[in-house]
Amino acid sequence: MIRQRFLPFSSRRRAIAAVCLVAAMPIVRAEDPKAAPPRTMVEVLAASVPSDWRPLDPETTLYLDLALGRVVIDLAPSFAPAHVANVKALAREGFFDGLSIHRAQDNYVVQWGDPDADDADKRRSMRQAKRSLPAEFDRALTPDLPFTRLPDGDVYAPDTGWSTGFPAARDGKSGRAWLTHCYGMVGAGRDNAADSGSGADLYVVIGHAPRHLDRNVTLLGRVVQGMELLATLPRGTAALGFYEKAEQRVPIHALRVASDVPVSERTPLEVLRTDTATFAALVESRRNRPEEWFKHLAGRIEVCNVPIAVRAIAPIQP
Amino acid sequence: MIRQRFLPFSSRRRAIAAVCLVAAMPIVRAEDPKAAPPRTMVEVLAASVPSDWRPLDPETTLYLDLALGRVVIDLAPSFAPAHVANVKALAREGFFDGLSIHRAQDNYVVQWGDPDADDADKRRSMRQAKRSLPAEFDRALTPDLPFTRLPDGDVYAPDTGWSTGFPAARDGKSGRAWLTHCYGMVGAGRDNAADSGSGADLYVVIGHAPRHLDRNVTLLGRVVQGMELLATLPRGTAALGFYEKAEQRVPIHALRVASDVPVSERTPLEVLRTDTATFAALVESRRNRPEEWFKHLAGRIEVCNVPIAVRAIAPIQP
Repeated sequence: MIRQRFLPFSSRRRAIAAVCLVAAMPIVRAEDPKAAPPRTMVEVLAASVPSDWRPLDPETTLYLDLALGRVVIDLAPSFAPAHVANVKALAREGFFDGLSIHRAQDNYVVQWGDPDADDADKRRSMRQAKRSLPAEFDRALTPDLPFTRLPDGDVYAPDTGWSTGFPAARDGKSGRAWLTHCYGMVGAGRDNAADSGSGADLYVVIGHAPRHLDRNVTLLGRVVQGMELLATLPRGTAALGFYEKAEQRVPIHALRVASDVPVSERTPLEVLRTDTATFAALVESRRNRPEEWFKHLAGRIEVCNVPIAVRAIAPIQP
Repeated sequence: MIRQRFLPFSSRRRAIAAVCLVAAMPIVRAEDPKAAPPRTMVEVLAASVPSDWRPLDPETTLYLDLALGRVVIDLAPSFAPAHVANVKALAREGFFDGLSIHRAQDNYVVQWGDPDADDADKRRSMRQAKRSLPAEFDRALTPDLPFTRLPDGDVYAPDTGWSTGFPAARDGKSGRAWLTHCYGMVGAGRDNAADSGSGADLYVVIGHAPRHLDRNVTLLGRVVQGMELLATLPRGTAALGFYEKAEQRVPIHALRVASDVPVSERTPLEVLRTDTATFAALVESRRNRPEEWFKHLAGRIEVCNVPIAVRAIAPIQP
């Protein structure tokens, strides 16, 4: 069935044709987009080479297993080392297993953790993990931090781009860098005190980027698979999208570090590296979309509109 | 129950306290924010006056009735007069009744219309409505068009703000204005030809603002109630989020113009006017959030992060 009247492509057939066509096309250099014919994202990805991709590191990957399926989270130790370490410690204690998703606020966040966290008598105990941590709202902008700058400015930050696979911002004047609240980013909820978060209560952005949260809360990773499982959860009807009744909460089967999961049960994924010419070409393919459907080329892109490419690693056949 | 460790407020109690407190607070003038103590959005809305609000006009309001409930759409005749007229004509022909939502693409759009639109033998017939219309991607920037400008710039447009209740952009150089693709905005799907849309296939933005669609497709309104019904629909697994099987589609009971619905069955809502001092104060309350939870004030706001305030009109008791 060919489906007219949808966006942004006029037919599925055309997209498939693009993938097939690219095999016969010369690979153009992303560094000189003026000299190259414009390429679609599909073409850019089809021309990628294995070194453009990084397999998820099982030591910095979380699996959030729900009855609905698995959510895969890529952690960001370069930006939130203490929170990443604490979430891993919590996961290894089984802290989250049997807890629940207790909040889903439309166009904002889905959040999970211990619903009894505020009740010292009832809350789940911790062994090695910490109940609170110093904030990691930003970090030093050091020369070793990769940063693929986007060319079109930003409403909230002096400079935005992608760093170590995550959307980020930086301020040369203050010498700081931080992750940005884009769709799918995962953060550590906190109370009013800046150092009251720990990673025991986690949220994920499910709507338009709430960029006013940047530098107000520690971001520690990003969902790379399974966002649709979280984004489609029924919205809570209590204030701030909390579920009113305990039975509305969505049970967490387990939250585990991927390296603790038997290899046969892992979800092998790789993510496009953000420090490659292919990523730069992908950005350009989204700034000016050559697909026939587009009549007005934006010529611009905003940090949270850069798609991140994720693909399954084909299992090796024995 | 007090819930710690969530964002952006530390407790429901505090939010309620703010609403109650405001009755005793002097009303400050939004025009001079420097002289006024900073106010939260809750305080700004509590201090609003009846003239700050506009009841939805039943002649430019659509009800999309699903088994899940009702979605209310505020139409934008100032920006898309021909498309608004055609969608109303389609609704009045009963064109949409019994058709379905056939696409849900995560972090992008939910779309509905006739799944057989491309098949001349099977597609639903039209009587008065038109199958295609000239594009209304933008309009003339005339002096009579209200425009509450936002002060912090934009990645995609020279100028953004709110006009007639909708997020919008303008370009003084070209003398054009257009609606922007923010969460909840409703547009008319089209094929590759710019004038191939008609409003017979409608989509709503359910994720981060796809601003690259601005000026590429006709936006004609915005969902003001019921977004959570659309945003939580299961995502389609075919290309571009189409549902693979007909039985996965979500039936449309009816799509009606509110004025055609008996008064007793209408959903009486009013929306904060965007040409008022209260709206300007609301914007300021979101640029710099005075709530204790915030440690770093953004000092900026982007057009799609301005919340739109909608409230029920209390029915008059007989």
